[in-house]
Amino acid sequence: MQTNKPITLNGQPIAGGKFPLICTPLVGRTLDSIMAELAVVLPKKPDVLEWRVDFFEQIGDSDAVVAAAKAIKKEAGSIPLMFTRRSTLEGGEKIALNEGQVIAMYVAVCASKAIDLIDYEMANDAANIVRVRDAARANGIKLVLSFHNFSYTPGLETLASKFLMADQLGADVAKVAVMPRNLDDVLTLFSATLEAGKILRIPLISMSMGPLGAVTRLFGWTFGSALTFAVGASSSAPGQVPIEDLNTVLAILQKSMGGKSVS
Amino acid sequence: MQTNKPITLNGQPIAGGKFPLICTPLVGRTLDSIMAELAVVLPKKPDVLEWRVDFFEQIGDSDAVVAAAKAIKKEAGSIPLMFTRRSTLEGGEKIALNEGQVIAMYVAVCASKAIDLIDYEMANDAANIVRVRDAARANGIKLVLSFHNFSYTPGLETLASKFLMADQLGADVAKVAVMPRNLDDVLTLFSATLEAGKILRIPLISMSMGPLGAVTRLFGWTFGSALTFAVGASSSAPGQVPIEDLNTVLAILQKSMGGKSVS
Repeated sequence: MQTNKPITLNGQPIAGGKFPLICTPLVGRTLDSIMAELAVVLPKKPDVLEWRVDFFEQIGDSDAVVAAAKAIKKEAGSIPLMFTRRSTLEGGEKIALNEGQVIAMYVAVCASKAIDLIDYEMANDAANIVRVRDAARANGIKLVLSFHNFSYTPGLETLASKFLMADQLGADVAKVAVMPRNLDDVLTLFSATLEAGKILRIPLISMSMGPLGAVTRLFGWTFGSALTFAVGASSSAPGQVPIEDLNTVLAILQKSMGGKSVS
Repeated sequence: MQTNKPITLNGQPIAGGKFPLICTPLVGRTLDSIMAELAVVLPKKPDVLEWRVDFFEQIGDSDAVVAAAKAIKKEAGSIPLMFTRRSTLEGGEKIALNEGQVIAMYVAVCASKAIDLIDYEMANDAANIVRVRDAARANGIKLVLSFHNFSYTPGLETLASKFLMADQLGADVAKVAVMPRNLDDVLTLFSATLEAGKILRIPLISMSMGPLGAVTRLFGWTFGSALTFAVGASSSAPGQVPIEDLNTVLAILQKSMGGKSVS
């Protein structure tokens, strides 16, 4: 099985098959501040944008959310937009919605077709995952099922099982982000990604967070992570590096590897 | 135990404790061509120079070798000089000397004090290793005991045992360089380095060679490798990256890790 599986949209790999993709988070609290972020971020040419809607003050108003998604999408042009409400259990902002309201918002945003990918935590109720999955599929939107642990890094078997679980639950992309307490944890994250990549057909995204995990944001793609998060204007998780630095390192490493990766 | 143990000379860490050190090989066949290499390499400010004497046409003439070592040292100024005859069994050039003549050359070069470090393969006869070790110690020269496998990467236990063997044989620095056949081998090299670093007091140098191993030359130091080889003028092993590229990546990664490493 090919280790480096790209993330696709409409049957085509994003950004012409560039590996890894660079994704920049948008974390503004208002549409104005998101637009200001976009003005900083877009000239840096990220491959994907992630709108972290849990930062959005108007998250309780689905119409406002859909309108904002459309406004972001219009500004982003051909850059795919990922829509994410990160739960507080997995490092997100506190919001006033209950999970049923979150699902309703997800369904509305999918129906608007203003987004290209949608992220939902695999730890949520199975019924809710099915609802998000069905809404995504009905609208040609790719589903990222994610697992985060901001405290520690589970063991190799547990970690690898998270990728497999995402696949079983119907994800188009499996994402795992964990906090290392030492360098062994960083190697565990690499190993789990490599092992899962040998088994699964879907693309994977993985990273160790924080300063110790910075190597995974820069080099995790060599072990199969299809996308890495980089700072355009503001970071959304610890350890993210500036997009310019990431591009520099990727170019050097890909040259060193003899052009093995497409860019 | 501290993971990142720097290589020292006269009780002081080389290059003020910079981690990792960048070492550039010199592979000229004549003193003139080595001097031409130095003219290219020195402006790039490597932390250590390695003279690969097995490339030197006059290797059969110990006086010529000592004279060349002194000439290199003079040109190199304060940059420490490592002296290495790489055996053909471990990837070196074919030479006309038998091992007894190699030892005599090593002893003569140590006595000249024109060098700062000396590399010898740990696979050599124990008696020869003792002779090299004693000559190095008598002259304040640091002994690197090395293991290379240009065909494949041994398993984790075997690989870790190479670092331990170097320590047992009296090395000041243990070096392991192996060829990966897949990405699992690259992770094995990282793991072996990390595990050995937890046990040993001496500094370690490790790398996976070739395109697949390029990641180890760029970020193996995060798992404890104290020195990485980079191309100044010509490479001496597959997968070496240009010194400028290495400096760029190190600066970015060290910034991302919050200045954890001294530079």
